[in-house]
Parts: sequence; C-alpha cells; structure tokens
Amino acid sequence: MKQSLTQIHEMWERFPSVQKELQDVLFIIQDSLKANDKEVEKALLDMFRAGGKMLRPAFVIIIGQFYPGNASKLKHIAASIEMLHTATLVHDDIIDDSPERRHAPSIQSKFGKDIAAYAGDYLFAATFKTLAFHTDDMTVVRQSTKLLENILTGELTQRTNHYDRHMTLADYKEQIAGKTAALFVLSAQLGATNGDAPEEFVNLVTDFAYNVGMAFQILDDILDYQSTTKDLGKPTLQDVREGVYSAPLIIAMQNKPEIQKLLAKKESITNEEAIQLRDMVIASGAVDEATDLASEYTEKALDYLSQLPEGESKDTLVAISEALLERAN
Amino acid sequence: MKQSLTQIHEMWERFPSVQKELQDVLFIIQDSLKANDKEVEKALLDMFRAGGKMLRPAFVIIIGQFYPGNASKLKHIAASIEMLHTATLVHDDIIDDSPERRHAPSIQSKFGKDIAAYAGDYLFAATFKTLAFHTDDMTVVRQSTKLLENILTGELTQRTNHYDRHMTLADYKEQIAGKTAALFVLSAQLGATNGDAPEEFVNLVTDFAYNVGMAFQILDDILDYQSTTKDLGKPTLQDVREGVYSAPLIIAMQNKPEIQKLLAKKESITNEEAIQLRDMVIASGAVDEATDLASEYTEKALDYLSQLPEGESKDTLVAISEALLERAN
Repeated sequence: MKQSLTQIHEMWERFPSVQKELQDVLFIIQDSLKANDKEVEKALLDMFRAGGKMLRPAFVIIIGQFYPGNASKLKHIAASIEMLHTATLVHDDIIDDSPERRHAPSIQSKFGKDIAAYAGDYLFAATFKTLAFHTDDMTVVRQSTKLLENILTGELTQRTNHYDRHMTLADYKEQIAGKTAALFVLSAQLGATNGDAPEEFVNLVTDFAYNVGMAFQILDDILDYQSTTKDLGKPTLQDVREGVYSAPLIIAMQNKPEIQKLLAKKESITNEEAIQLRDMVIASGAVDEATDLASEYTEKALDYLSQLPEGESKDTLVAISEALLERAN
Repeated sequence: MKQSLTQIHEMWERFPSVQKELQDVLFIIQDSLKANDKEVEKALLDMFRAGGKMLRPAFVIIIGQFYPGNASKLKHIAASIEMLHTATLVHDDIIDDSPERRHAPSIQSKFGKDIAAYAGDYLFAATFKTLAFHTDDMTVVRQSTKLLENILTGELTQRTNHYDRHMTLADYKEQIAGKTAALFVLSAQLGATNGDAPEEFVNLVTDFAYNVGMAFQILDDILDYQSTTKDLGKPTLQDVREGVYSAPLIIAMQNKPEIQKLLAKKESITNEEAIQLRDMVIASGAVDEATDLASEYTEKALDYLSQLPEGESKDTLVAISEALLERAN
C-alpha cells in the first residue's frame, strides 16, 4: 500500500529534500485515514494523490528548517495542515456542486453529498487527532482551531454576501485573507515555532506568508478568466455563477457598469453568457489591473523573504515563490 | 443577550442544581458562537435554545460531581460535548434533507445546504477550540478527536450500507454503539476523570453510559413507529425512506419476509406505503420485541448505576435514567 501515495507534484522534483519530506507527510496522511470506511478511504487517498501542490505543508517543512526542532512533530503538523485544507475543499465541492477536483471526479460527484459531508468531517477529525496525538502541543492545537474558525467565518460571510454586485476590492481582500492567506500564515508560524526561532523571524515569515497567500489567491482567481474548463478542471466562471465575485470582476464592474446589469440575472447565467462576461472583463482591462494587484503582494512577499537568513531553505523559498507567482511579473 | 439562552428543557426543573449548571453550559456555548456570522449565530442559538434535552452535557456535569475537579473545566467540557453533538445533527439534517429539527425549521431548510455545511463545520471548530483553550488538557482533546472519528466512521458505514435488507440486529447494535452510545460513554468518562475518581468508578460509569446510550437510541428508533409527524417533528418513517433501518424493522423483516419485498422499492416509498409499512411492523410484534431489547440495556444500566457511591448525584442519575427509559418498562 505504501508505494501508492508517493506521487508528489512535479514542481518539487527540483527540490529533492522537500520532496522526500512531503512523501513522509503523505505517509502520515495515509496512516491517519486508515480507520476509515474502505471506499471513502480510497476516495480521499485518490484526492491526496491527484497531485495537489502541497504548498501549505511544504511551507511548514521549509520554514521549519531555518531553526530546526522536532522533525517528526514538524511533519505531523504539515500533514494536519494538508488534511485541514483538503477538508475545506471537500465541503466546498459539495456547496458548489463541483463535478471535478484536481482533474478527477470530486468526492461529492462520485459518492454523493452525504458521503462527501462525512468525508470532510472525517478529515477535520483526523486533523485534530493528528495534532493532539502526534504534536502533543496545546499551542499548536489552539492556533489550528482558531484558524479553522476564521476560515469558516470567512466562508460564511462570503456565502451570506454572495451575488453582491456592490462588493468592493476591500471586501474581496478581507475575504481572501480569511479564506487563503490565513492558512499560509498558520503554516509559516507553526513551521517557525517548531524550533527555537527568534520573534523577528516569526514576524518576517508571517508577513511573507500573508503576502504570498494573497498573491496566490488573486492569481488563482485570475486563472478563471484565462482558462478553459479543460485547463482548470472546473467549468468556465463557475465561481461567478455561484455568486462568488473575485478581483477581475469587481474591478470590471467598477470600470464598466453594464457588467453589473448582466449579473442582475444572477443564478440563470448560461455558458454562453459566462463566456461573453469573461470576454467583457478581459476587454475592460480588469484582468491586467488584477494582475498588478497580485504583483504588489508578490513584491512585498519577496521583500520580506530577502530579509530571511541565507541558506538552502531561503533559496528554496525564493525559487518556489517565484515559480508560483511568476505569472504576476 | 445573556437571558435569551436560558431556556433549559423542562425535564431539569426537578433538578435545580443540574439546571443551573446547564444554564452556565449554554452561556459558554453562546460565547463560543459569538465570532460567527450574525445570521448563522442566531440560527445556531435558536437550535440550542429549541429545547434539546442536553442529556450528554448533563451526564458530564452529574458524573463529574461524584469526585469533583475543576468546575469551570467541567462546564467547558460539557459545552464542547453539546456542540459536537449538535454539529453532527446539523450535518445529518443536510444529508437527510430534513425540513425540521426540534420542532423548528432545520438550518439547512432555513438557510440552504451551503450555510448548514459551514455552520456544522463551525461547531466542530468551536468544539475543539473550547477544549483546547478552556480545558488545557490534551487527554480530553485526544479522547474527543478519537470519539468524533468513531462517530463519523459509524455514520459512513451506515451510509455505505444503507438500503441493506439483510442487515442484522448485530449490525444495528454496532451502528448505534458508534452513533449514539459512544458519545454517552465519552461524556461519562470526561466527567469522571475531571476529578480524582478511582478506576473502578470510571469503569462503572462507562458501562452505565454505554447501556443507557444503547437503550436510549433503541427507544428513539421505536418512537418512529409510534408517532405522527407532529409528535416527532419529522416525517413518518423518514429514516426508512432514507435507507436507514432500525431495530423494529430489522426484527420485522426477520419475522415477516413480505416486508423485505415492500422495501425492494427503495427510495420510491410513498407516504401511504410508509404508513402501511409501519402498521405491518407493529402487527408483526417487532415493536414489542425491540422494546424488550431496550429493556435489557436499561436493566444493565440501572444495575451498574446501583453500584455507584450513594448521594445526590446518584439519586439524580437514577431519576433521569428512569424518566428517559421508562417507556421501556
């Protein structure tokens, strides 16, 4: 069974030491899912195996290498972070009726929403079980529960406010800070504090992770306007159809009020209208403006990064940050 | 705001000291939900307020009084147990499409499945946050994460096996042990170990709680065959329509094979057919047999209970156990 979970995303091939650690992280995840129903275990393993980038656990590992602490604890924290992240994805797919995730059928489309609901809950349980049993560190458990609460509050606010055509960029930033950047920040902080890092280092990686997370989410949202269903593994402008508005659309609505009118139709947007909307957003220059916004965060991230102690860990962080964020430059 | 959450189920009026503690438990829950989205916070508070019996937190409190430890910690454990239980109810209602819960609209019917999914997740987060911050006891966190994993594994198995007309009483017992009795057991154990209870006491309350939980669930399942929608706050034989088979039906299928045939229609059972099925189950004597099964557990529970140290806590446990389980005698 063990060899089945070794497929790490190709981006880590350039970083063999990180790749090896991430492999161990996947083994920990595999062990954590063992008590589960066999069919669901397989579905979850398939999802972990389907080639997520494992950015968040990689952040835990790499940032934890600056001031090394207990290596096993670090890997269990990394595994928990990835399971927590995946739990939110499984539940997001239920809510969004997503047929696909990572170019494979989503758990909800394969097994139904009932199994997917429990599978997500199961991952939450596995997350906290792994933290409680394998880190034996109440501070880590506390930070993780607080973070999960923040993520969920953010998601709830997003849902309560969806289809809001008067959403501002400030609303959007608050939303993605809670939805995405917060988990990058937690990954960095748990990595840093596993060893005996000075406060200044913890603050630097916190600021670095926040800005990487913001840039990463904006670039991800921009992708919806640049790609076809096949590229992304999900339907064109699915978020917009679900009432979730992101930077390109918000900027475009400010620039071109007629886009607001098109959205007044809400849930009834057809595929043709979605394509028309995407073209209007691009034509308005909003995608370029959103890309500039992402660049601002990227530059801040790289600036904080430059202040970290020199060494292999820093070089790795610079390389993956540039690879992740290069679309913004 | 504080006075709004003080409506404790009338069954506790006879036990003013427990009633007071449960009021404090509700205040803790109210505080835990504060950071949440306002509309969802209200929906969740309404659900806590709607008069659940709060049996599980009451078990924590009463059993914790035999060998008293930190009183605040005990109440926070009790609050966490009730939030954990409620989280599973919120997600169950999504999965079962339940329009009602505790005689009020369910969160999923009022706000939609998306909000309900996050609201349940939020309660899981609040559960572990409360345990991590207010009990500061890793053993408690560990036991709770393990229990949640067991509950969810049980629910997954139930879902994977649903509409199984060859389900045995042994399968059913295993299912309700994981789904219901396990949380009663955890409540008893966390209550007992909050103070300095001897191992013999912990074992006794564990056995007591297991048997109470089993009897309670069987009696609850029997109610489906004795009540109208109005009494129960949910449609006639809803569980059966969802493919969840309980003791009366399993016994009836063993006694009368023609009932198996009726069920071959599966998901397409009409309301009339449900009423017909219910009448057939009752006529077969299966409800009486299921009641006998519940009585066996009740008797064991009362036997373990009789071995506990004398005092007000024991008297209270005896009184509520008899009140809860009297339908079985």
